[in-house]
Amino acid sequence: MARQPKNAIAPTRAEDYPEWYQQVIRAADLAENSPVRGCMVIKPWGYQLWENIQRVLDGMFKATGVENAYFPLFIPLSFLEKEAEHVEGFAKECAVVTHHRLEAAAGGGLKPAGELAEPLVVRPTSETIIGAMFAKWVQSYRDLPLLINQWANIVRWELRTRMFLRTTEFLWQEGHTVHATEQEAREETARMLQVYADFAANDMAMPVIPGEKTEGERFPGAVATYSIEAMMQDRKALQAGTSHFLGQNFSHASGIKYLDASDVEQYAWTTSWGVSTRLIGGLIMTHSDDDGLIVPPRLAPLHVVILPVIHDDQARGEVMDYCGKLAAALRDQAYAGRPVQVRIDDRDIRGGEKTWAWIKKGVPLRVEVGPRDIASDSVFVGRRDRDPKDRVSMKRGEFVATVAAQLDQMQRGLYERALAFRQANTRRIDSLDEFRAFFTPANPDKPEIHGGFALCHYNGSVEVEKRVQEELNVTIRCLPLDAADEPGTCIFTGQPSARRALFAKAY
Amino acid sequence: MARQPKNAIAPTRAEDYPEWYQQVIRAADLAENSPVRGCMVIKPWGYQLWENIQRVLDGMFKATGVENAYFPLFIPLSFLEKEAEHVEGFAKECAVVTHHRLEAAAGGGLKPAGELAEPLVVRPTSETIIGAMFAKWVQSYRDLPLLINQWANIVRWELRTRMFLRTTEFLWQEGHTVHATEQEAREETARMLQVYADFAANDMAMPVIPGEKTEGERFPGAVATYSIEAMMQDRKALQAGTSHFLGQNFSHASGIKYLDASDVEQYAWTTSWGVSTRLIGGLIMTHSDDDGLIVPPRLAPLHVVILPVIHDDQARGEVMDYCGKLAAALRDQAYAGRPVQVRIDDRDIRGGEKTWAWIKKGVPLRVEVGPRDIASDSVFVGRRDRDPKDRVSMKRGEFVATVAAQLDQMQRGLYERALAFRQANTRRIDSLDEFRAFFTPANPDKPEIHGGFALCHYNGSVEVEKRVQEELNVTIRCLPLDAADEPGTCIFTGQPSARRALFAKAY
Repeated sequence: MARQPKNAIAPTRAEDYPEWYQQVIRAADLAENSPVRGCMVIKPWGYQLWENIQRVLDGMFKATGVENAYFPLFIPLSFLEKEAEHVEGFAKECAVVTHHRLEAAAGGGLKPAGELAEPLVVRPTSETIIGAMFAKWVQSYRDLPLLINQWANIVRWELRTRMFLRTTEFLWQEGHTVHATEQEAREETARMLQVYADFAANDMAMPVIPGEKTEGERFPGAVATYSIEAMMQDRKALQAGTSHFLGQNFSHASGIKYLDASDVEQYAWTTSWGVSTRLIGGLIMTHSDDDGLIVPPRLAPLHVVILPVIHDDQARGEVMDYCGKLAAALRDQAYAGRPVQVRIDDRDIRGGEKTWAWIKKGVPLRVEVGPRDIASDSVFVGRRDRDPKDRVSMKRGEFVATVAAQLDQMQRGLYERALAFRQANTRRIDSLDEFRAFFTPANPDKPEIHGGFALCHYNGSVEVEKRVQEELNVTIRCLPLDAADEPGTCIFTGQPSARRALFAKAY
Repeated sequence: MARQPKNAIAPTRAEDYPEWYQQVIRAADLAENSPVRGCMVIKPWGYQLWENIQRVLDGMFKATGVENAYFPLFIPLSFLEKEAEHVEGFAKECAVVTHHRLEAAAGGGLKPAGELAEPLVVRPTSETIIGAMFAKWVQSYRDLPLLINQWANIVRWELRTRMFLRTTEFLWQEGHTVHATEQEAREETARMLQVYADFAANDMAMPVIPGEKTEGERFPGAVATYSIEAMMQDRKALQAGTSHFLGQNFSHASGIKYLDASDVEQYAWTTSWGVSTRLIGGLIMTHSDDDGLIVPPRLAPLHVVILPVIHDDQARGEVMDYCGKLAAALRDQAYAGRPVQVRIDDRDIRGGEKTWAWIKKGVPLRVEVGPRDIASDSVFVGRRDRDPKDRVSMKRGEFVATVAAQLDQMQRGLYERALAFRQANTRRIDSLDEFRAFFTPANPDKPEIHGGFALCHYNGSVEVEKRVQEELNVTIRCLPLDAADEPGTCIFTGQPSARRALFAKAY
């Protein structure tokens, strides 16, 4: 048997992709499962990714005129019931508060007491409670558009959870907007979908396909749901963000009405849109390799980690001094609107172990500095998007002067690599046999990574979707917005089709 | 009857202080009550105050080595029960999740279903769930200190709520740290109390008295609780932040142990500390006047609002052009580490109404610009800490060049005014009769603003505290840390006392 190259993450992606994902999270110390069913703990390195996602997105939202606010965690059951499809869609996953204190139980310990007259649902999303407030805030056409966002925690009771991708509690933002006309609301829905697509491409280096969801995949209560879909390295799709055109459904449910310029009362048009900590799962699965996490520089908590190489205490002062000056010079450089983020790691642990810890955490640039480097005013640089052994010596001044350019090159390289991977695993499929083969592993007992994105004609019926999902566990991810009008024949029914839909297995 | 001066807020502080507080919040559009019992909605202007508080405090925490993380909203009942005093302290105010879905009820509508084997408490604070994680994370003395903070929502079921000051759900940060020694944990407790005191003084312009809480006012489960106490304009005290030395109580409860350098297992020492959206209530009641909110410049969402004065459409282009250039020049100035925050308000509403809207929102500087000002290259400036009618014309260049200095002057002026008010209403009291008179309104049927801070000798017993609270509704706010050793006689018992305690009525 051939000797395997040694990697930091076991198993590798090819060996066991789901387990590789868990191990990357563990090795990078991003998060861990908590003793609370289905809830994770986001650890500092993972939370810093979320803080950077928040910082960038928040700026993009505000640039479109959106303001942040905060609404109650609890939603009275009667509010949720106001929109029939909505409550039906969430009823099976609602955590319900029924009591407001604890009292001594007969057998010792405590039990819930003080039963509430009306149960409170822990928000699975906030359309109904925010709608109740919007109904008060919107009186006249002069109050519109109303553009509000909330950063909050959300609870949806999940039976099968996976860190970042699907957890009972998660963090997200939810935008909620009110408009005077259908057209303005549709434009807002499209604008925020584009914000998400731009953020995914530019900041996460994650190419996405924006498109409309089919009827069966719509947000409960929406008229139309749009999403961005990304391809993970196991070729499965990840829905990474959604934007909903809600029509007048929630305006009718909550009574969001305004007097127009002619003093006539009108129901308003609303939208909602959100992304969550699931994005971090997407980031991990788009870029990481068999040595661990790779963080796109624009979202990196640290851009450069400096590793002093100290073999004896005598050299310590000189090396640390040099490292301090290097760090200061790097911090004077700017990348993507921030000072370059630098840390000197002088913890007293073995050099190899320390280097690998930062490789597994995905820091873009590692710089080793020892007495020999100092003698030649050089640094020894490793880049996280290259082989760990592939390091180069650079003059200190050159490294400092080019650090932003290197980060930028890495950011673009990650995007291009992900895009090339998606293109290599996207296929236009025109026959059902080919479709079945594409989505069927060669060995069902030990399924290898297979499939990808299939662009196929279909006739738009919910029945076809259901059948494909039941047979192959494949779903229509979206009707891509940039799909060309291309008359064809539905590969499932033989009926005429106007354009292709995107099919994939999905998270 | 003498004619009253007209103010924007009715009633005034002197007329009805609690109602004045509610009306300031309404007039500034900071927040409003929600249809969910005891829960408020924080509106954009109020939420921007919170964002600025978060930004500054988060930087201060991180500068001391603290990292952010996120822990579950839900705490299993058995976790809360691990520390006896702790669960007893919170049992009466716990929202309890008992079911995880909704199903059709016999009489129509939905009812809770899927009863949980173990009830989940919505976090009233997170010592126990975070402690459970820390017990896994801490293994060796090398893992210490562990310095973690969480920004989160908290639920404590309250019967009587008041916006920002006491709400069933509120936003806060909770720091949780683990240390190898008692001394380090005590130092951390003191360090974070000082961070809060510095933030209150420097950023909120709110002078505070740091001190230790008495036994009866300790955080449930703490060995010692410290707080910062501020005086509101009705002379009542507001506890604005707390820092707890938890000893080894939670280490024992959660099993937070480490191997010391000699490989001997030791229980760790922990602290916790927090501030909440209550700070916004403190900010409002420290600075606002009978015309509405006054925001300290360092936390202001906007520093300058520019109000174009346009009487005819012909002048509009010229005025807006001038305002645009003025805004750009102001944004090039920096104040307290941020570019000066500017908005041009060209909404089509009456000039007087518009000006008063910004006065009520507390924007530090208002600038009116009309054709006559432009002709002399001047702006007409109103400062929120001065009378609304007391405005001055300044050359544009001078205004731009001095904007940061004016903001700084206003920030310091607000602090000095608040400090002078506190000093004027703080009294050293050495007799019980004087104490009673100090805290008793002249007319009990229509109590005017009275009382203040009383510095008195007391003998440190819980009984005295209880008696004073029952008789006069006065509590010991703290034992001030800077109180001089000053032997005296307890005014309640005649027993000897080593130093003075701070008494006040409180929120």
